[in-house]
Amino acid sequence: MKTIYLDNNATTAVRPEVLEKMLPFFCERYGNPSSIHTFGGSVAAEIEEARCRCAELLGAGFRDRDGKASEIIFTSCGTESDNTALHAALKARPGRNKVVTSAVEHPAILHYCEKLNREGVEVVKIPVDERGRLDMEALKRSVDEKTAVVSLMWANNETGTIFPIAEAVKIAHAAGALCHSDAVQAAGKELIDADGIGIDFLSVSGHKLHAPKGVGILFARRGIPFAPLIWGGHQERMRRGGTENVASVIGLGEACRLARLERETARKHIAALRDHLEQEVSSRIPRIRINGDLEHRLCNTSSISFEYIEGESILMLLDMNGICASSGSACTTGSLEPSHVLRAMNVPYTAAHGTIRFSLSAANTLEEIDFTAACLVPAIERLRQISPYWREGK
Amino acid sequence: MKTIYLDNNATTAVRPEVLEKMLPFFCERYGNPSSIHTFGGSVAAEIEEARCRCAELLGAGFRDRDGKASEIIFTSCGTESDNTALHAALKARPGRNKVVTSAVEHPAILHYCEKLNREGVEVVKIPVDERGRLDMEALKRSVDEKTAVVSLMWANNETGTIFPIAEAVKIAHAAGALCHSDAVQAAGKELIDADGIGIDFLSVSGHKLHAPKGVGILFARRGIPFAPLIWGGHQERMRRGGTENVASVIGLGEACRLARLERETARKHIAALRDHLEQEVSSRIPRIRINGDLEHRLCNTSSISFEYIEGESILMLLDMNGICASSGSACTTGSLEPSHVLRAMNVPYTAAHGTIRFSLSAANTLEEIDFTAACLVPAIERLRQISPYWREGK
Repeated sequence: MKTIYLDNNATTAVRPEVLEKMLPFFCERYGNPSSIHTFGGSVAAEIEEARCRCAELLGAGFRDRDGKASEIIFTSCGTESDNTALHAALKARPGRNKVVTSAVEHPAILHYCEKLNREGVEVVKIPVDERGRLDMEALKRSVDEKTAVVSLMWANNETGTIFPIAEAVKIAHAAGALCHSDAVQAAGKELIDADGIGIDFLSVSGHKLHAPKGVGILFARRGIPFAPLIWGGHQERMRRGGTENVASVIGLGEACRLARLERETARKHIAALRDHLEQEVSSRIPRIRINGDLEHRLCNTSSISFEYIEGESILMLLDMNGICASSGSACTTGSLEPSHVLRAMNVPYTAAHGTIRFSLSAANTLEEIDFTAACLVPAIERLRQISPYWREGK
Repeated sequence: MKTIYLDNNATTAVRPEVLEKMLPFFCERYGNPSSIHTFGGSVAAEIEEARCRCAELLGAGFRDRDGKASEIIFTSCGTESDNTALHAALKARPGRNKVVTSAVEHPAILHYCEKLNREGVEVVKIPVDERGRLDMEALKRSVDEKTAVVSLMWANNETGTIFPIAEAVKIAHAAGALCHSDAVQAAGKELIDADGIGIDFLSVSGHKLHAPKGVGILFARRGIPFAPLIWGGHQERMRRGGTENVASVIGLGEACRLARLERETARKHIAALRDHLEQEVSSRIPRIRINGDLEHRLCNTSSISFEYIEGESILMLLDMNGICASSGSACTTGSLEPSHVLRAMNVPYTAAHGTIRFSLSAANTLEEIDFTAACLVPAIERLRQISPYWREGK
């Protein structure tokens, strides 16, 4: 059975071009970039090349005297980048003890904030409306002279809703606070202009943009004191210890280069497929809702609630047809509660429970989308027939 | 020019068998192991398989009711494992505020200890003697009811000296403290029996045992409260957030399996080559010293001081012949000071400055060692001819 992969917000396939760039660095050019000998040392130049490609994708133009994009720190994942950004921001604003974030962030932010809160840091979670839009008035009211950092995701992993980060940076800076954005879902899909909006920290995950799992980026603006989360050798200019993950970093550089080159073409293709999916579903299946801010949304994400049935059952029927999708974030699998994102949006339980996230990539085709819609129609009908809620709810 | 790689304590080549196991997980089986669909979920079983292989190498026999080796936590590197172990141990012993370590640990321990010390944790560094042997009396005196954790490396990365970890565990436990060992250099070379000695935490790095860079292990004994360093999703049983580094974890499992199977044969081969190198050098070059505890030393490591000359110059001449070695740790490259390990051993400056670490692997051959010795003899002679210290020192 052919796999139809519509779960690209959970993870993406490594592109063959990316893997090809990585391959020499496993068994042949395996030297440690910190080594003095040519065999290891020559790898360091490749890492710096990758660093520049990553900086370009994020609109981070600074290059030091050696031409290095030193605002880019390589980490092991988006989660580490998120944790490190909050940690570093609090240390960089020592008189301040407050983090302002949103109610719909990824667990990498929310769980770290819970930890900070147990340690005495005040955490304010800005609410969103029923479309997942951030309450900007609440944001303005909450950011004050006690705030060390405002941390808001660029785009939501479940609904694709895009937050007004440029505006958030202004609000943070006006109060003397720093601003971080978890751009894990946005990087490669949205135009990110770190310099243009003057943001202080950005998190990116390799495996969400067709690089391998196990590598991430933390953009950290120069001039801001930096406190590492992981302490070891002198790697990453003493900002992240541990031998560089050479092959993955080089793969990430190539993935960023390709994402930048192909972004506009890919967006059009992906958005057309996504819109087609939503059109098919809307016209053929009654009682559905499409969640999120339809005006400001990632091109690839569609969160659809099928009222009065269970998301898990829908996923199972899709899975039997080789179709991969998800209910909420892969990082919270196993929970029986509807996702915190849908709850924050006040999506009614009868709809939240039956919500499926479809997240597309440039590799998807119209045939795959048509097949998915064709599978969904009878699946939903069948599940509703056996749902007591459906009979009552109608 | 052929590369002769004698720098395996800095990093190792990924074994082709390991890469082969990894390859399907980049572009084909790229699903997120946390996903509900079969495509992603089926990857989770492979991760658990790898986890068992890692546990076996470390002598960690516990399996939970699902047969999982749940004492193994996958991390991004040895440095992260080291940092996490100290962090977790201090949280697990909340009334205690002291860390006992040694003067010759890796920067992943020493720099993290400096950070802890700035935060008010008492750090005691046990000295070593001129052979790099730990002062066991000082250890016994220092570990007390204030000590949260004793952290000692299993084997030193520069000299290969092996510490009596089983003894250290007893001393730590007798005082109610936990015991951690940075086993990054020992894993795969020495027999590690986590259960036999009852150690609480162990750190391992993938790229030191022919797995890729960017993946590590933290063994954390069950029953000890665990405080994560990186907070995110539910991965690794809430002990380490971030999407699993699938391909690398599976590669690490295979590397551990091979290391366990081949350890005894490999040790004999490597030790014979190492001894041959030392014999050649000793008999053909005057005024050298071999550093470390020659009775208790890793099979693959040789730290040789060539008196009255500079290590960097030796390395350069070796490099011109395609031979990769190092002066001290790759993680402290760029420093003009002799390594903290040699200083702690009171190696005289005139010798410490001219110290080269050769670290072998099973892939090395007798021809490579003979060629290295043949290059060293004229190189040392030439450098000594132009060294003013040599003429004075003689």
